[in-house]
Amino acid sequence: MNEYATRVPLEKAYRLINHGPTALVSARANGVENVMSAAWVCGLDFQPPKLTVVIDKIAKTRSLIEQSGVFVIQVPTAAQIALTHYLGTHTLAQEPDKLQRAGVELFSLPDVDAPLVTGCAAWLACRLIPEPHNQQQYDLFIGEVTAAWADSRVFQDGHWRFEQAPASLRSLHYVAGGQFYATGESLNLNIDS
Amino acid sequence: MNEYATRVPLEKAYRLINHGPTALVSARANGVENVMSAAWVCGLDFQPPKLTVVIDKIAKTRSLIEQSGVFVIQVPTAAQIALTHYLGTHTLAQEPDKLQRAGVELFSLPDVDAPLVTGCAAWLACRLIPEPHNQQQYDLFIGEVTAAWADSRVFQDGHWRFEQAPASLRSLHYVAGGQFYATGESLNLNIDS
Repeated sequence: MNEYATRVPLEKAYRLINHGPTALVSARANGVENVMSAAWVCGLDFQPPKLTVVIDKIAKTRSLIEQSGVFVIQVPTAAQIALTHYLGTHTLAQEPDKLQRAGVELFSLPDVDAPLVTGCAAWLACRLIPEPHNQQQYDLFIGEVTAAWADSRVFQDGHWRFEQAPASLRSLHYVAGGQFYATGESLNLNIDS
Repeated sequence: MNEYATRVPLEKAYRLINHGPTALVSARANGVENVMSAAWVCGLDFQPPKLTVVIDKIAKTRSLIEQSGVFVIQVPTAAQIALTHYLGTHTLAQEPDKLQRAGVELFSLPDVDAPLVTGCAAWLACRLIPEPHNQQQYDLFIGEVTAAWADSRVFQDGHWRFEQAPASLRSLHYVAGGQFYATGESLNLNIDS
């Protein structure tokens, strides 16, 4: 975390992923920590906030989540594009130093039993809501968001403010083959939130 | 549909929503047609392509999907921002002329038993995979994509090409309170797809 990380009220936490950014998923179990990328992260409910994430059976992070019941969804920035792609295309099972190679720096928080990735734009700590059929049949995991933080340079008063910050802090939207889009222009219908 | 609508191979269909755009969901049953907006649409599988969509119990479109087992996910453009917001904040149950007020123009395709919305950037025809527990407990619906099309001005050869087209054809990412982001700058790691 850094000096800009600010707590986001739970009722606004869905807004951190509502625009569909590509995410990083981190977890820890039995002393093993890992981080993977996931393009398929999505809001599921507002209050309490819930989200879905699709995690393939080959992912080491998946077994960590199944063991600990805890994970963190974080929103990486344009500055982390290479790290994000690396984490989505390499597996800890075959590359024990994956995190170092990707350039990941982790930090911990007292009430979160999963590692968090430094330099992201937002962090959502989640507890797994076990749904064995979804997990087995669809690789689909459901989490309840238990706490959330965002970088105050880009998220203030419940809204993203990317237009006030350097482009390197924009969130990412993955397509395929190493191509991403950055989050773009703010378009506002001027309706009260 | 229009002169630019081009068939997208099913194995590339996930790319139409992989970047997390806000979507329109359309369906038809017993002669009733409706369209709603949904920010919570997400990829679920590659082959056959599947997706998830969260649809509240108050949505009229939900009952149409439950009756017909068919729906279309479409990717609206920046030019359709007001239409998109209107469709997400008004219900056919209370406003029988909702679609006209929103400015929606529908079209049909022979093999799709749901209406499609003119002017979008992409269309994914889906058949519902019934999962009663997910639908009741989480408002979560799973669809298998049976056919897909995209506007060739913005999607070519399996990739979005927003940067080659007017900004009005960019896809949208909803935050809250009438605020959207357009899909932004293309960032490419130059890896073969």
